[in-house]
Amino acid sequence: MAKPNMKIRILITGGTFDKEYDEINGKLFFKDTHIQEMLRLGRCRLDIQIQTVMMIDSLDMSQEDRQLILQNCKDAPEDRILITHGTDTMAETAAVLGKEVNNKTIVLTGAMIPYAFGSSDGLFNLGSALSFVQALPHGVYIAMNGRYFSWSNVRKNRQTGTFEEM
Amino acid sequence: MAKPNMKIRILITGGTFDKEYDEINGKLFFKDTHIQEMLRLGRCRLDIQIQTVMMIDSLDMSQEDRQLILQNCKDAPEDRILITHGTDTMAETAAVLGKEVNNKTIVLTGAMIPYAFGSSDGLFNLGSALSFVQALPHGVYIAMNGRYFSWSNVRKNRQTGTFEEM
Amino acid sequence: MAKPNMKIRILITGGTFDKEYDEINGKLFFKDTHIQEMLRLGRCRLDIQIQTVMMIDSLDMSQEDRQLILQNCKDAPEDRILITHGTDTMAETAAVLGKEVNNKTIVLTGAMIPYAFGSSDGLFNLGSALSFVQALPHGVYIAMNGRYFSWSNVRKNRQTGTFEEM
Amino acid sequence: MAKPNMKIRILITGGTFDKEYDEINGKLFFKDTHIQEMLRLGRCRLDIQIQTVMMIDSLDMSQEDRQLILQNCKDAPEDRILITHGTDTMAETAAVLGKEVNNKTIVLTGAMIPYAFGSSDGLFNLGSALSFVQALPHGVYIAMNGRYFSWSNVRKNRQTGTFEEM
Repeated sequence: MAKPNMKIRILITGGTFDKEYDEINGKLFFKDTHIQEMLRLGRCRLDIQIQTVMMIDSLDMSQEDRQLILQNCKDAPEDRILITHGTDTMAETAAVLGKEVNNKTIVLTGAMIPYAFGSSDGLFNLGSALSFVQALPHGVYIAMNGRYFSWSNVRKNRQTGTFEEM
Repeated sequence: MAKPNMKIRILITGGTFDKEYDEINGKLFFKDTHIQEMLRLGRCRLDIQIQTVMMIDSLDMSQEDRQLILQNCKDAPEDRILITHGTDTMAETAAVLGKEVNNKTIVLTGAMIPYAFGSSDGLFNLGSALSFVQALPHGVYIAMNGRYFSWSNVRKNRQTGTFEEM
Repeated sequence: MAKPNMKIRILITGGTFDKEYDEINGKLFFKDTHIQEMLRLGRCRLDIQIQTVMMIDSLDMSQEDRQLILQNCKDAPEDRILITHGTDTMAETAAVLGKEVNNKTIVLTGAMIPYAFGSSDGLFNLGSALSFVQALPHGVYIAMNGRYFSWSNVRKNRQTGTFEEM
Repeated sequence: MAKPNMKIRILITGGTFDKEYDEINGKLFFKDTHIQEMLRLGRCRLDIQIQTVMMIDSLDMSQEDRQLILQNCKDAPEDRILITHGTDTMAETAAVLGKEVNNKTIVLTGAMIPYAFGSSDGLFNLGSALSFVQALPHGVYIAMNGRYFSWSNVRKNRQTGTFEEM
């Protein structure tokens, strides 16, 4: 597993994790990622590079979007990568990555409630995923609900909003 | 490492993690642990048993208190144990456990700001520690600041309030 | 003005004030009002009766809905009434009431951000409106942005999301 | 009563309202006032001047401190003044002011839980007090627990932590 303080890259892609509420029109939208604020809150002392790749709802992701995420994973100098992502098609992006990347530890996570709202799982998931990205062997994983799943055996249960093995 | 959904035991011992503010006398004190509420917030789906061993400031811990924690670790049927603990003497308890227990994965964590207050690192640390307790091999560890430390090489830096290797 | 501890009635009609986020479908919806929790947070010691009349977005209010609110105001034994209401058509309901009721102090308030989210103005507005309902003479008012407005001279500025005199 | 948008002065004196938690030594202390952030959260559009007179626990207030607050009230160009103050000796300061100032509306408020913590009554009390300072006739008042009290008939109940008439 990773020696303490190995370099980690965080790729931001959007999702409910980073959504905000627009009080003028009552809709949810994206502004800036909250990840630095969350890492500050967690008093995180890891060596982290943050890169915003896109800020979209994962239901709006195209094949090109997922290829862009894949390319960013390949281009990253780090072999430990955390990806924040919408939960709706997180398993699809994980599969695109899992089939192509086998020399890095990549962990995807997200949130069911925007971090900007009360009662968010975002901070918990971020801590969880950052630990898995340090401790798991090379491979592509989803970290949600306190657990980790291999990319080849995971789906989102749309009734419960939780992740499970297939 | 742990197969998904291995049973995990959480031993509660107090610390800033679970402190609350008494509005009548302006002091911090312990009531009930907040851990179930935090696990609910994180939408955690792990198989977890929670046990409150004590609720004290770790500066007030005696040798007997640490022996009690040790005994609870030995008695637990699970081989994955998370301990919430005050940060001030967390490394001491980790050493007591590390010298005696080698057939379990034990992770100690805590918080610098009470979970009951805003801006707490508690939820992040809980997610982080729960992931390490699943993924790390048998041994005793501290999980703080997003990282993990072996019990034999960790101390709390009292100026910065963060943990580091010795 | 009201002698301390005069009886106050709160009529709940919905609006952004009481909206919540549905994590399964990503939409905002109504469950139960949060007003008791908010009064508890404020350590409010007023003599208050709470009545949920409806839980709707004020953009969805019909003439019948506003007539129902009016009827509840007339039927209430109290002469101090606070109404939580969506901000979009709050001025319209205030006008319906203002033209018909002149023997009570009625104050409408709401929120631009749901109380259930972080960064809400709900708690501030509730404290503000409760004070105005005790201190203002009989009449119908809107309390938003820390101020009060007479029903006959107020509108919501849809660009800024704040209330102002016409 | 005040015409909308009359100028209001806020005098900051400290108290639990503005206390913060020091994570290094576990104590409560004062840094900067949070009042601008709270007024922003409330989307407050009043014409307000903010002045920090002192930042102390009201149990530590001396006669000189109260005289300084009195002098600031007299010197203020505004005739509407809100004072944030510790709750423990708020009634004493109110009495000092009440005996000397009769040409202004002065309202004292505070909080039982620091605004910086979760579950604070601070935002509610601020909204409440700002409304009373606009609506009440000249005099000195305490605004707590959703109510207002004349300076000559109020005390803090130290068992319940609430304010009541004597």
